[in-house]
Amino acid sequence: MPKAVVLLSGGVDSTTTLAIAKAQGFSVAALTVHYGQRHAVEVAAAQRVAHHFGVTEHLVLTVDLRPIGGSALTSDLAVPKGRPVDQLADIPVTYVPARNTILLALALAWAEVIGAQDLFLGVNALDYSGYPDCRPEFIAAFEQLANLATRTGVEGTARFRVHTPLIHLTKAAIIRRGVELGVDFSLTHSCYDPLPNGAPCGACDSCQLRRKGFAEAGIPDPLPYPAPSHAAEKET
Amino acid sequence: MPKAVVLLSGGVDSTTTLAIAKAQGFSVAALTVHYGQRHAVEVAAAQRVAHHFGVTEHLVLTVDLRPIGGSALTSDLAVPKGRPVDQLADIPVTYVPARNTILLALALAWAEVIGAQDLFLGVNALDYSGYPDCRPEFIAAFEQLANLATRTGVEGTARFRVHTPLIHLTKAAIIRRGVELGVDFSLTHSCYDPLPNGAPCGACDSCQLRRKGFAEAGIPDPLPYPAPSHAAEKET
Repeated sequence: MPKAVVLLSGGVDSTTTLAIAKAQGFSVAALTVHYGQRHAVEVAAAQRVAHHFGVTEHLVLTVDLRPIGGSALTSDLAVPKGRPVDQLADIPVTYVPARNTILLALALAWAEVIGAQDLFLGVNALDYSGYPDCRPEFIAAFEQLANLATRTGVEGTARFRVHTPLIHLTKAAIIRRGVELGVDFSLTHSCYDPLPNGAPCGACDSCQLRRKGFAEAGIPDPLPYPAPSHAAEKET
Repeated sequence: MPKAVVLLSGGVDSTTTLAIAKAQGFSVAALTVHYGQRHAVEVAAAQRVAHHFGVTEHLVLTVDLRPIGGSALTSDLAVPKGRPVDQLADIPVTYVPARNTILLALALAWAEVIGAQDLFLGVNALDYSGYPDCRPEFIAAFEQLANLATRTGVEGTARFRVHTPLIHLTKAAIIRRGVELGVDFSLTHSCYDPLPNGAPCGACDSCQLRRKGFAEAGIPDPLPYPAPSHAAEKET
C-alpha cells in the first residue's frame, strides 16, 4: 500500500480526511502539530483518532508559533463568540498567519523522509471561516512548490500530490461521509476556546460551524455543549 | 523605512544578505531557526551578527526537525568530509528535507504579523551543495504561494517579494560584497560538524566552500581551522 501523510488536528475535517485516505487504500502516516494553539486539547483528540483508526505512524511535532503571534489561537486576543457563521466574509482573528503553509511544509519534509508522495489536508472552502490558505488556488500552488522544493524536483523520481477531498463539501456532507467511513465523532475536538475541562464552548466559529453541520446532516453531535451563553446571544 | 524579514543562520551567505537588505534601505527583522541542527552553534553566530548590525528585532524560533530526520544535519548520519567541492552534482546527505520551504513559511508568517512584505534568503545556486530548494524556480514558486497563502492574497493589499540577492554569485563574490558592506566574518559560522569547542572542522562541504571562496576572493578567512585531517585527505 502506498503511504500518505495526513495532517491530523483531531477535528471533524481532518478526521474524515484520514478515513477517506484509508478508504482510498493508503497506508496512513498521521502528522499532528502542537503549535502553541489555545486549544491544545485537540492534540489529545488527534491521538484518540489515530488510535481508533489503527494508525501506527503518528508523529506529533512541536512548533511553537506563539512568538510569532498575530492570531487569537496563538496569543491573548479574544476568540470571537456568537458570530453569525452563515455571513462570514472577512478573515477573522482566528486566522493563524501562514499556518497551512507551515503545516504542509512539515508534512512535505516528513513525506520525503518516509517515502510518501501523497499529502492529505482537510481544508474546506465552503463551510469555513474565510481563511486564505483553505482555497483551491493555494493548494495548487503548494503542490507545484512541493515538486520543486525536494529531491524529486531535481531527480524527477516521483511527484507529490496534495489531496483535499473535502474542499468542495459542506460541513454536513463531511459529517455524513465520516459516519459512512466509521468515524467516531465523539473522539474529535473542534472548539477554538474550550472550557477549562476541555469541553467545547459552543459559540466560537468552529463550534458553530460544527453544530450547524451536524444539525443539517440530521446526526446528533456527540459532544456536550453548554447552554447558550448570554454573551453569545447578545453578540448575535 | 520598509521592514524586511531576513532569514539569518549566522553563516557567510545569510550575513551578507542581511548587510545587503540594510544597504537597500530596509529595516531588518532577523529570523533564526533553531531546528535541531548538529551545528546549533550557528544560532550564537546569528546573535552576534544581529548585534553587530544593530538589528533590534531578532526572533529565534525553535522548530525541532529531528523527529523528522532524513539528514546528516538533524540525525546521526555522518557528515561527509573532504569531498571535492568543485564536483558536487548529487544531492548530499546534508540536505534537510524541505528546510527552505519550512524556513520561508515561518518567515512569511512573521512578515504578515509585523507588516513586512519583503523576505530575504541567502540561497546561492552557484557555489552550493546541489540542494533543490536553493534554485531560482523554487524561489519563484514560493513567492507565488506566499501571495495566495495570506491575508493579502484575499484582500489584495500588498505583495510579498522573496529577495535572493546572492543567487547568481560565486562564494568569492559574496565574500567581497560582504566585506564592502562591513560584514565582520569572524562573527559568522559555516561548519556543519563543528569540533566540541565550536571551531569549524575545515573539511565538510560547507567549510570547503567557504575556504575556497575566501581563497578565491584573496581575503583571509578569520576563522581558525585545524590542520588537514588524515581522513579528509584519504577521502579526497
